[in-house]
Amino acid sequence: MDKMEKLKEYIKVDAAYNHALALLSWDLETEAAKNSVSGISETIEVLSSLQYKNLVNDEFKNLLYSIDENSLSELDKKVVSELKKSVFEKLSKIPEKKYSKYNSLLSESQAVWEEAKNTNNYEIFKPYLKEIIMTTKEFIKYRGYNKNPYNVLLDDFEDELTVKKADEFFEKVKKDLVPFAKKVLDIENKEILKAKEKLNMKFDIQKQKELAYELSRIMGFDFNMGVLKESEHPFTTNMNNKDVRFTTHYYENDVFSSFYSITHEVGHAIYEAQISDEVDNTKVLAGGSTMGIHEAQSRFTENVITKHKAFMKTVVRLLEKYFDLKLTENEAYLLVNEVKKQYIRTEADELTYPIHVLIRYEIEKEIFSDLESVVDVEYIKNLWNDMYEKYLGIRPRNDSEGILQDSHWSAGLFGYFPSYAIGSAYASQMYEALTKVVDVNKALENEDFTEINKFLKEKIHKYGASKGPSFLIKSVSGEDFNPDYYINYLKDKFSKIYGIKE
Amino acid sequence: MDKMEKLKEYIKVDAAYNHALALLSWDLETEAAKNSVSGISETIEVLSSLQYKNLVNDEFKNLLYSIDENSLSELDKKVVSELKKSVFEKLSKIPEKKYSKYNSLLSESQAVWEEAKNTNNYEIFKPYLKEIIMTTKEFIKYRGYNKNPYNVLLDDFEDELTVKKADEFFEKVKKDLVPFAKKVLDIENKEILKAKEKLNMKFDIQKQKELAYELSRIMGFDFNMGVLKESEHPFTTNMNNKDVRFTTHYYENDVFSSFYSITHEVGHAIYEAQISDEVDNTKVLAGGSTMGIHEAQSRFTENVITKHKAFMKTVVRLLEKYFDLKLTENEAYLLVNEVKKQYIRTEADELTYPIHVLIRYEIEKEIFSDLESVVDVEYIKNLWNDMYEKYLGIRPRNDSEGILQDSHWSAGLFGYFPSYAIGSAYASQMYEALTKVVDVNKALENEDFTEINKFLKEKIHKYGASKGPSFLIKSVSGEDFNPDYYINYLKDKFSKIYGIKE
Repeated sequence: MDKMEKLKEYIKVDAAYNHALALLSWDLETEAAKNSVSGISETIEVLSSLQYKNLVNDEFKNLLYSIDENSLSELDKKVVSELKKSVFEKLSKIPEKKYSKYNSLLSESQAVWEEAKNTNNYEIFKPYLKEIIMTTKEFIKYRGYNKNPYNVLLDDFEDELTVKKADEFFEKVKKDLVPFAKKVLDIENKEILKAKEKLNMKFDIQKQKELAYELSRIMGFDFNMGVLKESEHPFTTNMNNKDVRFTTHYYENDVFSSFYSITHEVGHAIYEAQISDEVDNTKVLAGGSTMGIHEAQSRFTENVITKHKAFMKTVVRLLEKYFDLKLTENEAYLLVNEVKKQYIRTEADELTYPIHVLIRYEIEKEIFSDLESVVDVEYIKNLWNDMYEKYLGIRPRNDSEGILQDSHWSAGLFGYFPSYAIGSAYASQMYEALTKVVDVNKALENEDFTEINKFLKEKIHKYGASKGPSFLIKSVSGEDFNPDYYINYLKDKFSKIYGIKE
Repeated sequence: MDKMEKLKEYIKVDAAYNHALALLSWDLETEAAKNSVSGISETIEVLSSLQYKNLVNDEFKNLLYSIDENSLSELDKKVVSELKKSVFEKLSKIPEKKYSKYNSLLSESQAVWEEAKNTNNYEIFKPYLKEIIMTTKEFIKYRGYNKNPYNVLLDDFEDELTVKKADEFFEKVKKDLVPFAKKVLDIENKEILKAKEKLNMKFDIQKQKELAYELSRIMGFDFNMGVLKESEHPFTTNMNNKDVRFTTHYYENDVFSSFYSITHEVGHAIYEAQISDEVDNTKVLAGGSTMGIHEAQSRFTENVITKHKAFMKTVVRLLEKYFDLKLTENEAYLLVNEVKKQYIRTEADELTYPIHVLIRYEIEKEIFSDLESVVDVEYIKNLWNDMYEKYLGIRPRNDSEGILQDSHWSAGLFGYFPSYAIGSAYASQMYEALTKVVDVNKALENEDFTEINKFLKEKIHKYGASKGPSFLIKSVSGEDFNPDYYINYLKDKFSKIYGIKE
């Protein structure tokens, strides 16, 4: 066996652990009974530790670093460099004991955060948040950093993203979108208020489920390749490119909640399902590229596509078919694009969404730009509330709708949030490029996503994680990332809806 | 760390693999999409091989065989002897590569069998069945056997069961039940025919689902400990005693199919859920005892209990509640106990059921009594059909209702079937003992299973796999196994229903 073949034996084992762990999490989120949780956590812990030992050992390290890269295919080269980066330049620099202690801290903190959120009790979560932040700072020291320590965390979720680049992006959000959103938020759109009254009804859950399947199929999701189920928080996961799973949740009084959860998650799901077999087979490069690229796909389908004027024919048709609800296309368009003063990021409209992210970015940057200071979690909470007041004109009435709303920090996911907004910006640039080769209006009016999905597959999806965002954005648009597309797209769309003249 | 503690580290890893593998199979059977099957099979193959390597190695073997058993608790002693038996007297004799290849053959064959059954196409399943049988024969050679090779397979599912003992049992079935059943099958019960007309209606699937949950709860299943789902072939599985899962299937034109699938699987499920934590924590002795003991629990709840005259009040109540169907208790009793010429074992009545098993036993005995002959799967199919004609007076009209009906052989489960009939016989002996201490009529009329479940827990369930059938049958009844209880129970019950005087 040559060295690359030997390497692939390790990868095969790693992939089997990944599959089992992904399925255990899927099970935990979607159907496991209450009393089963601790048994599942125990198995996750044992398998995670076995997975760690499979790769983090001298034998594997020697093998990996002794491979002659010149003899390899491009894809195998990328596999090797990805493994060096993810296993030995990241994971292995942290002492194993600290790492596993941190992991058990995280699983404890998830439960505490949930309780804190449900009972509006930030006090009980504070010591956990503090310890997670301080451990993350400690880990940055182990891992080393360039210029700003926060760069390490940004790069974890969005390759090559730095504070410098993120600052440029969020400066535009602050300068252009914040004042524009404020203007929009002050307008009372009477047409929307009137249309909203029609939504004051019950939407049968069984019917919503049927709608969810039809909608997913319209968007091109093939249920031979995956599963749709329910969970507390909608998400997408995948075992491989032929086993992609996503969830939604149904509310009897809010049909659009599930509707747009579906169109969001189907964006993720089709991305995973369209990764080429060649890339999927490497296992290491399977799955999507960065978080930003992934969010670009989901926010593209959710906002740019299924909140598009030309898709309203379908929205109207489906609401009439399943609920006998009669809306005009214009009413539907106004309703799904309503801009609201909203405390909760995940329920935010397309326009104010990046402002929610801006707030989290500024807080994280302040925390992690300095590794030596001890975080003051009471101060962080006040900062959160002050920023909501400053940027969105609303002050959270309690911590559950304030700093406790997201699960990310309790899971140690710092550096993750910016990718949501940057993903949205990628989506606008993707759209601009798409309109040059595909008649989007016609495609949507015909409920035919074939050309759209084909375009995304060729330009982005098929590459999986074998390419980074700069390559993919250039591949899809012919240009480097340019956030102006995003700013212009939002201002243009919402100026029209709210009758604002520049 | 002392040796037993070290041993427990291995067991912990083994249990994590078991959990992951059980979940992967559960997933495969209940929700995985068509195209996901091969990816799941691949992961099952890798994890099975890792699991094998974890225990089948010199280090573990030396540890296991060097433990001073005198220093151990009774339970730990049993753990050690169980591991010696299952790992080194069984598993390790089969070369690892053959073992994992066989496992992936099995997961592939499941899908092929399903298609074969659905499209009535035995041809596509033939090569799989042949290879599974020939591999099983090969494995028996590796494992070695005493007297009849088929003994090895019988013992896999029912400790200490041999062809000699099974022959004695099935001779009674042949001698006493076959002629009695023929007599019953020749009687036209007009009351039943009349009552049957009332069942000629559609039973809404959604309502059947709701009924399934209520029925499971009445029987004492706690949904904090598990999950009910749908699958082609109803089954029960468990991750541990706090995570027990079972399935059913719903037919719009047959309400009793799901009804009695539920009462069968809940019998299995409550058994698993009532195993003591002490035994469950050993992992090695977790889960039920033999298959015969397991089937005893499920056929006890299905036939003896929920087809009992005193349970008819509940049957009538539920059918009226969910489907507005009005039956008298007597009509219900006759309907659920109707003896029919039936092709499908799982739909068979209580009386002819052991005859379906007898047929499978005779076929398997013929196949595995001789390891050298190459199986002729066309001949086996004809044998199947001939025996149905001989023992039940019916000849399957196609293979879907003939040899393709059961999933067992496609899963390599040879030696399993006899335990169904022997389990039914155990159940009659359990019932005889139960009636001495619990007022069964009163309990069922009150829909209160507390005393029944408590009795089963104390006498059988709590022991899990730490005790074998001879101990458990004596524990529950104070006697050794005696199949006469079964023969008498059946003849007595059905003589009354069909007005037969001996």
